[in-house]
Amino acid sequence: MRTALCDRFGIEHPIFGFTPSEHVAAAISRAGGLGVLGCVRFNDAAELDAALTWMDEHTDGRPYGVDVVMPAKIPTEGTAIDLDALIPAGHREFVERTLTQLGVPPLDSHGTGVLGWLHSVARSHVDVALQHPIRLIANALGSPPVDVIEQAHRHDVPVAALAGKAEHARRHVDNGVDIVVAQGYEAGGHTGEIASMVLVPEIVDAVGADVPVLAAGGIGSGRQLAAALALGASGGWLGSCWLTTAEYAVGLPASATQQALLAAGSSDTVRTRIYTGKPARLLKTRWTEAWSSPDAPEPLPMPLQNLLVADAHQRITQSGDPTVVSMPVGQIVGRMNAIRPVADVMTDLLREFDETLTRLDKLR
Amino acid sequence: MRTALCDRFGIEHPIFGFTPSEHVAAAISRAGGLGVLGCVRFNDAAELDAALTWMDEHTDGRPYGVDVVMPAKIPTEGTAIDLDALIPAGHREFVERTLTQLGVPPLDSHGTGVLGWLHSVARSHVDVALQHPIRLIANALGSPPVDVIEQAHRHDVPVAALAGKAEHARRHVDNGVDIVVAQGYEAGGHTGEIASMVLVPEIVDAVGADVPVLAAGGIGSGRQLAAALALGASGGWLGSCWLTTAEYAVGLPASATQQALLAAGSSDTVRTRIYTGKPARLLKTRWTEAWSSPDAPEPLPMPLQNLLVADAHQRITQSGDPTVVSMPVGQIVGRMNAIRPVADVMTDLLREFDETLTRLDKLR
Repeated sequence: MRTALCDRFGIEHPIFGFTPSEHVAAAISRAGGLGVLGCVRFNDAAELDAALTWMDEHTDGRPYGVDVVMPAKIPTEGTAIDLDALIPAGHREFVERTLTQLGVPPLDSHGTGVLGWLHSVARSHVDVALQHPIRLIANALGSPPVDVIEQAHRHDVPVAALAGKAEHARRHVDNGVDIVVAQGYEAGGHTGEIASMVLVPEIVDAVGADVPVLAAGGIGSGRQLAAALALGASGGWLGSCWLTTAEYAVGLPASATQQALLAAGSSDTVRTRIYTGKPARLLKTRWTEAWSSPDAPEPLPMPLQNLLVADAHQRITQSGDPTVVSMPVGQIVGRMNAIRPVADVMTDLLREFDETLTRLDKLR
Repeated sequence: MRTALCDRFGIEHPIFGFTPSEHVAAAISRAGGLGVLGCVRFNDAAELDAALTWMDEHTDGRPYGVDVVMPAKIPTEGTAIDLDALIPAGHREFVERTLTQLGVPPLDSHGTGVLGWLHSVARSHVDVALQHPIRLIANALGSPPVDVIEQAHRHDVPVAALAGKAEHARRHVDNGVDIVVAQGYEAGGHTGEIASMVLVPEIVDAVGADVPVLAAGGIGSGRQLAAALALGASGGWLGSCWLTTAEYAVGLPASATQQALLAAGSSDTVRTRIYTGKPARLLKTRWTEAWSSPDAPEPLPMPLQNLLVADAHQRITQSGDPTVVSMPVGQIVGRMNAIRPVADVMTDLLREFDETLTRLDKLR
């Protein structure tokens, strides 16, 4: 399939693949889509620089992009120590007690958490990324600040922004955003309450024909990709379905996560504020269930909630226990039932997409 | 567009239109779809009989169906007086206090509530409907009891059942259900948590090629209908979009409801148990908001919750105040922005559906 976006980005298929793994991102680009590397896990700009250098060497000259996490309004900022002081003791006690109850051992060594949620760190991601031949900067929290959009445009890099409501999408475009990612209720990670079937055409109509819209949420098969294009999207933004690829396990501690994802059905997710302070869809595990118990505190606002649970996430990862995994994933997890190479996932998507168009054509 | 369902039902378009209004249902059938009359509001079988007789005279011989509300397991049953005794006084006090606070005047005369949620009444609906030339019995609460399915089959009437999960759909088919309505999260009325984009292909794959699946939830335009068929559905099940038709206001007290629906956006719905005791998506109004206040009681189980709020619903209707309307509607309400005849809604759906297939065909 080809849409105008293919020509604009120099890609074969309008499939944008978001992933925290440079191995997956590179494989998506090599398979003809646009791999988009999530930067939030890189606390140190030099680490991100190294990952992007690796991508430059492993994408066969194919285009790729990056994804940052940056609110339009600059949030509470400060050192990790300043922010730590804002976290109530009762919240820390709940986390500690819960991990003990869940049988999650202490960390071998104290970690630093994920600082990518801080505005200053996200800005350093943009600075570093623009030194590489990136073709897209996407922002997971909507429109980035206008000066960041202008910075990207000076490098001829278009900016995409996630939106869960039509009014947000319009605001992003007013700020200078080039592409809107319509993130439906069923999507993994930060998400609103309007499902893709309603949200995608609503955003398409709101931003007009000149602004391409990518559909995000619920896409893991060719039928779903065809549905997204039927709804008016110019392409698909897929995140969850790469979490069970073979490449995802290269360089990331993925075994327990992948085991949990393979076993989960479409009902096994929950939309909750416990990951970052904003509503995000996660795999439902004993960890998320503990936070919905009557004695659990209300999650803190961003960026405090992420700092609160940062060590817990490391402890959970270190434990290797699939039943306590803390992982953003969409309802499409029910269709993620085998570990497969990225290229195979892409081939199946395209084949089923083509079959779907053939089937629809016979209805006329 | 034509699918195998068109031949099976003798309809022009695979558009199944659910509505509590016989005027709307007849208009849907006359426009080439299958009008499905919701029976739950008919307390008296003779009233339903009269409505169906009216439909027989106003559908130009086109096929139509009925929708009943019947759990597979026979629920608590009894007279209205027996059941009334099970409703806690605190719940009644909350309803009374809330209506007073919302400025909803008392009823001019005491009503009888809606008894259609009772199993015995739903069975009487089936008995009456089978004396008319109906072409479908749909059940809004999943599979009806097996003996009811067999009763329908003896009259050569197929049975459809709503499902919000693949495992429910499989169970319905095991019980003898002929057609599954995949009811996505975004739908109005009783609904589960899985959005259409994920639910429809999951149910299609679960029940296999011999069982047609209708997609319900989020369909109010031709793009959405095309998306539903791309996902593997054999047709669309549309409910909300008929609530703002001209025909809906004939014979039903619709003015305040329609005014509220026209003004609502896609974010203005809420999934709550306050309507029947089971999760259902309603228009968000001051009435639904009152039930999410900290002092509100937990909704009662079906059928008690509906009995509890039955008088309140009549008071709200009598008040004519759009800000307190209690009305099931899906997220598609954001696209319902004008009062139009059913035939116009249908024409637009079909035109946009055709345009969508033309657009998709160019992507190949």
